[in-house]
Amino acid sequence: MQNYTVALDAMGGDFGPRVTVPAAVQALSRFPALKVILVGDRNAITFQLSQLGYSDSSRMSIVHSDQVISNSEKPSLALRRFMHSSMGMAIDLVADGVADACVSAGNTGALMALSRFRLKLLPGIDRPALISALPTVSRKCIWMLDLGANVSCDADSLFQFAVMGSALAEVHLGHQARVAVLNVGEEEIKGNDFVRRCADMLRQTQSIRFVGNVEGNQIFNDLADVVVCDGFVGNVCLKSCEGTAQLFIDKLKNQMFGASIKGWIARKLFSDLFIGLKTLNPDHYNGASLLGLRGIVVKSHGSADISAFANAVGEAVHEIKEQVPSRISDRLEAVLLERHY
Amino acid sequence: MQNYTVALDAMGGDFGPRVTVPAAVQALSRFPALKVILVGDRNAITFQLSQLGYSDSSRMSIVHSDQVISNSEKPSLALRRFMHSSMGMAIDLVADGVADACVSAGNTGALMALSRFRLKLLPGIDRPALISALPTVSRKCIWMLDLGANVSCDADSLFQFAVMGSALAEVHLGHQARVAVLNVGEEEIKGNDFVRRCADMLRQTQSIRFVGNVEGNQIFNDLADVVVCDGFVGNVCLKSCEGTAQLFIDKLKNQMFGASIKGWIARKLFSDLFIGLKTLNPDHYNGASLLGLRGIVVKSHGSADISAFANAVGEAVHEIKEQVPSRISDRLEAVLLERHY
Repeated sequence: MQNYTVALDAMGGDFGPRVTVPAAVQALSRFPALKVILVGDRNAITFQLSQLGYSDSSRMSIVHSDQVISNSEKPSLALRRFMHSSMGMAIDLVADGVADACVSAGNTGALMALSRFRLKLLPGIDRPALISALPTVSRKCIWMLDLGANVSCDADSLFQFAVMGSALAEVHLGHQARVAVLNVGEEEIKGNDFVRRCADMLRQTQSIRFVGNVEGNQIFNDLADVVVCDGFVGNVCLKSCEGTAQLFIDKLKNQMFGASIKGWIARKLFSDLFIGLKTLNPDHYNGASLLGLRGIVVKSHGSADISAFANAVGEAVHEIKEQVPSRISDRLEAVLLERHY
Repeated sequence: MQNYTVALDAMGGDFGPRVTVPAAVQALSRFPALKVILVGDRNAITFQLSQLGYSDSSRMSIVHSDQVISNSEKPSLALRRFMHSSMGMAIDLVADGVADACVSAGNTGALMALSRFRLKLLPGIDRPALISALPTVSRKCIWMLDLGANVSCDADSLFQFAVMGSALAEVHLGHQARVAVLNVGEEEIKGNDFVRRCADMLRQTQSIRFVGNVEGNQIFNDLADVVVCDGFVGNVCLKSCEGTAQLFIDKLKNQMFGASIKGWIARKLFSDLFIGLKTLNPDHYNGASLLGLRGIVVKSHGSADISAFANAVGEAVHEIKEQVPSRISDRLEAVLLERHY
C-alpha cells in the first residue's frame, strides 16, 4: 500500500487546532495509508494531541509556524508578508514534494495567491479555478467553477475550466461528465462573446460531453455534472443562492413558528427542519478545490466542525489517489491534440 | 384631474384576453383618471368584455391586431415580422403619443427589441435596462438592474443604470435611494474593471447616494435600495435565486410532508406554507420595467393572474404620474453636470 501525506494548515479556520487536530486524528483512522503534517503553533497542536491521547509519531508530524493569516488579510499582502504563515508553509510542503496535498480552512484569497505563486500553473492552463460540488434536486452533485478565483475570464479560460471540471467530476462520477455553460438562455445565440465562444469550442470538442447552456434556475436540476462560468458570475451566483436560502428560511420560520397553537406545534415537531439547509455556499457545503495548479489544494470552510474538516482531508486524499493534477494535464493535452489536428 | 392612457397588449401572457381584459376593468375601477386601449383580437376582447358586462366606451377602446408574438419567438425576428403584433402596436401607440405607457405580459426579448426600436433611447443613455423590485428580509424592496437587457456592459452603462435605478426607486421611496454595486466582495479593490470604475464614478458623484459594494448573499439584506449589475450577472443571479428557492421548498416539503404522523400533521396545518414563496423571478414578483426609453414600458409576468396584471397596470400608472422618463433625464443631466464642472 502506497503512503501519501497531507499538509494541514492547523491554524486556519474559525477554531484552529481545536478543530483541525481532532479532524486530522479522525482522518488518520479513516485512511490507513495517510500521513499528516500539522503546520502551526507547536504548543497549541501538542496540547490538542495530548487532550486526545494521540501519540503515533510515525503517521503524524508537526512543522512549527508562529504566523497566522487572518480572514481580513488582503491576498496581495499574503505574498509579501505571510510566506511563513501556517498556510504558506503547508503549501510550501506541497511545492517541495514533502506533502502530496494541503488543506486549509483559512483566508480563501490568500490561499489562492500563495498556492498560485508557490505551486505554479499546469502547462496549458492560464488561470486556476475554484471548484466545489453543490447539491442538486436529485441528491446528486454538480461541480461548479470558477467560484471566484478570477473576476474576468476569456473564452479560452472558460474552456480550460470545462476541461478541469470534467477531470475532477469524472474522478467522483466514474463516467464521462456532462458539461454545461452557465448562460442567460438555453439557445446558442444567448450570452456574451466569451460564453458563446467557449460553447462553440466545447461543441467542437469530441472528448468533452457538452450538453449546452444552463440558466441560473436550472443549476440544481441535474441537467449537467459540471457548470462553467467566470469567477465573478460564479461568486455572485452562489452567494445569491446562499442569500435566498437564508431569506426563505427566515420567512418560513416566521410563518411557521408564530405565537399561536400552530406555532407551538411547529416548534415541537419541526424545530430541526432547517438545520443543514442554511447555506449553499461551497465553503459550507463540503469545501472547494483549487484546480489548475501543479499540486492539490483543498479549501475547507472556515466554520467547519471536526467531521467537516476531516471530509476536506478526505477530498484531498481522493484527489491524491486519483492524481487529479496529472489527470487534468492528460485531459487538456487530449483536448488540445483533438482541436489542433 | 388629468387623464392618462395605458395601451395593453391584450394577447400577451399565458392566458391572453381571459386575464388582460378583466385586469383592465379592475385597473379602470381602481384609477378613475385611467383610460385603457386594449390591443389584440377584437372578437376575443369583445367576448371577454361582454362576459364582464363592461361597456364604458369612453374609458376603454380596442385596437385590432390579429398577430401574436409567441414566447419562443426570437427577439431579432420580432423587429422584422411582428411590428403589427398586439405587442408591437401597443408600443406604437406610446411612440405615436396616443398612449402614455404600455404593458405586456408577452415575450420579454421581443418587448425589449420592439420598445428600443420604436421608442428610442433617452439622451445620454447608451442602453436600456430591465429593472424590478425584489423582496428583502425586512419586507421592504430593492430595485435591481439590469436583469437581462444587456449581456455585457461597460462602466458608463453601469453608471447610467445607477442613475436610472435611483430615479425609479425614489419615485416609490419618496426619499433619496441608497445605491450599491453588485460585486464579489465589499472592498473597493474587488471585482472586474467595469464594476470598479463604475463604483469610482459613483463615489465621485454627490447627487447619488452610493453605499458601496454588496455581495450576492447581501442583496436581500436591505443594505441598499438599488443594486446595479450587468444584465448577464443580473439574469443569472436572479434565476439562481429562483432555482434555490425551488430547491429549498422541494427539500422542505420532502422533509415535512412524509408518510408519517408528523407528515400528516404537517399536511393538515402547513399545506399553504409554500404558496407565494415559489419564486423570486422579477416576472413573478410584480413585473419589471424597461428604463432608459423615451416612453414607459412595463413587463408583467407571463403567468400573471388578473390581479397581478392589474398591478402591472398600476405600476405603469405610477410611472406615468411621476413622469419617470423625464425624471431619469433630469437626474442624468444633473449628474453629468456635476461630473463635468
